[in-house]
Amino acid sequence: MKFIANKDDLLNGIRIVERATVIKGLQPVLANVLIETVGDTQVKLTATDFDLSITTIINATIESEGKFTLPAKKLGEILSRLNDELMTLELNGSNATITCKNSKFDIIGISASEFPKVEEDISGNDCMEMESVPFIKAIRQVVSAAAGYETNNLLSGVVCQVNKNILELAATDGNRLARVREVVKNASADEENPFEMLISSKVLSELSKIAALVDSETIKICKEDKKIVISLDKTKIMTRLMQGQFPKYNQLIPQTFPKESIVNKGDLISALERVAVMVNEKNSIVKFEFADNTLKLSGDSPDAGNSEDEIDVKYTAEPLTIAFNYKFLLDFLKIVEAEEIKVCLNTPLSATVFSPNSDEDYLYLVMPVQLRG
Amino acid sequence: MKFIANKDDLLNGIRIVERATVIKGLQPVLANVLIETVGDTQVKLTATDFDLSITTIINATIESEGKFTLPAKKLGEILSRLNDELMTLELNGSNATITCKNSKFDIIGISASEFPKVEEDISGNDCMEMESVPFIKAIRQVVSAAAGYETNNLLSGVVCQVNKNILELAATDGNRLARVREVVKNASADEENPFEMLISSKVLSELSKIAALVDSETIKICKEDKKIVISLDKTKIMTRLMQGQFPKYNQLIPQTFPKESIVNKGDLISALERVAVMVNEKNSIVKFEFADNTLKLSGDSPDAGNSEDEIDVKYTAEPLTIAFNYKFLLDFLKIVEAEEIKVCLNTPLSATVFSPNSDEDYLYLVMPVQLRG
Repeated sequence: MKFIANKDDLLNGIRIVERATVIKGLQPVLANVLIETVGDTQVKLTATDFDLSITTIINATIESEGKFTLPAKKLGEILSRLNDELMTLELNGSNATITCKNSKFDIIGISASEFPKVEEDISGNDCMEMESVPFIKAIRQVVSAAAGYETNNLLSGVVCQVNKNILELAATDGNRLARVREVVKNASADEENPFEMLISSKVLSELSKIAALVDSETIKICKEDKKIVISLDKTKIMTRLMQGQFPKYNQLIPQTFPKESIVNKGDLISALERVAVMVNEKNSIVKFEFADNTLKLSGDSPDAGNSEDEIDVKYTAEPLTIAFNYKFLLDFLKIVEAEEIKVCLNTPLSATVFSPNSDEDYLYLVMPVQLRG
Repeated sequence: MKFIANKDDLLNGIRIVERATVIKGLQPVLANVLIETVGDTQVKLTATDFDLSITTIINATIESEGKFTLPAKKLGEILSRLNDELMTLELNGSNATITCKNSKFDIIGISASEFPKVEEDISGNDCMEMESVPFIKAIRQVVSAAAGYETNNLLSGVVCQVNKNILELAATDGNRLARVREVVKNASADEENPFEMLISSKVLSELSKIAALVDSETIKICKEDKKIVISLDKTKIMTRLMQGQFPKYNQLIPQTFPKESIVNKGDLISALERVAVMVNEKNSIVKFEFADNTLKLSGDSPDAGNSEDEIDVKYTAEPLTIAFNYKFLLDFLKIVEAEEIKVCLNTPLSATVFSPNSDEDYLYLVMPVQLRG
């Protein structure tokens, strides 16, 4: 195997696939990237941790075909330090040699035959294609609400649905729930043929990072019984579908609320970060007191002291005192784009819904915490 | 105690003194800063870990006098989040209350009576005063060569001398030696009264960081038998002098060298960082081959492979192969200002001296590593 490639292209390819490498696993080959020539002008890169597999294709001038695996981390370190655009990679027995201007590296690799087989194709034709930007944005809006990743916990997944031209994503860890709906152009799913899947929030987080490295206007998702292939231009991400019945979350979202407040996002973030200096680190509780167009926030730390702050808001209903884990709110406030936030309230123990005070169909439901005493 | 101060002034003061706090020590009061009013217009801040003590003074409007200790870390977090310039600090029993616009914090503190006594005065008058900028620069140029800090290791110290208007600082860990000499204006030491001290490199590193927070043109150093007080404007740093005979390092520096090379600093840093991807992590050895106006660098990692690079240099002497711990060289190359570096060489096992190819009197001597095989 011998090829010439632009070192930034190869580095970008490594950065994309290395998200699926296993650095300190039992099988050293899983820390490596499989590099294989495809025809005369392309090189394919593959990495896998068995759960998640990623492939991508870069342009190259192939001088002789072949395949080999090299450690992703070392390869990234080398490529990022090269000082010329073009580099040559050539296989020499159990080493690969990279040359670039006056620099030369012999890198110990592992034979491609030891690399696990990664299946990119899917039987059947249950596919959906749409614009990538709104999908990636929707992922970022909901993933924080998913439970921490555990193989058999359905709540660590994100529900993705496309029905006609409406995309809906939702996630919940039982204490909070995020749901976003977006109109997407060119979605290929229709009313008779809606598309629905439950996919690990960890994989979707990786996907949103990979999307930043890939220039692709559309995203295509194909699924069969237990498998899914997500394609962004020449990059493919293969993973398992999560199996099981996700909670009927739309039933959990109250339709009407007796009380409402409009809050400036920047004011609320600053005030929350101030009072959070003095909260109990075990539960992160901040108390909210809505009354008379003001919101008073307060925190209490058994060891360090207590804090309070007050901001002007719109609120004319009966006074209400309610408490939240402030970290849940910051997860929402730091991702929502609107400058004004609508807070829909009921009782001190009722689900409270935070949403942008705009046309956007995005909400973050947070269960309050009961205050003692 | 009650005073009004600019929150940025108080925050800067906390940042200066907190370098001497002990976060998880046996005595909780050492994680705190002693805050005491001085007259009607000043507040003094003190922190100590017994080895190093720091005091500083900020301007304030004193409404009632007193003193108290508060946790440095919490205080820093609070002050950095306040959203107005002026803040009030008031003592209420075992709490202090900070108010600023709509924000209020009750912080649990510890009585000032539990704070250790910090002695700022020194008997006698063995003092030296000079410009601060060259002294701080000289510290940064030599500290990397000192041995890691251990209480009774003289080599973890830095020798500082002022003789007439020449400042000399030197440090060595036995494998490398840094020495810098600078002409300083207004130095108060003279030939009949030279000033010399051995001071921990850890304290000098802290001093160089503190200097960045203090606006002071001059630095004053006073010492007595075992103690030293360094003053930068209204900030004072108290520590122990190290006792013992530092090696006569000037005798270790060869006066003449049979071989010399001139190397571009940027080229050398880039090439070293490239070959360093493939070095043995235990000894960090990079091989240097000087010959015919080129310098070939190479690295060899038993697990990952090997690397080589070549740069153009000035070198017309007999070819020479020599090896160094590349980290020692980067410590020097990243701090030296000159664009061209002079490398003075002898045999593959002789001390090699790196210095800026300029008027600056700064050198970094590195002992080579013996290559096997």
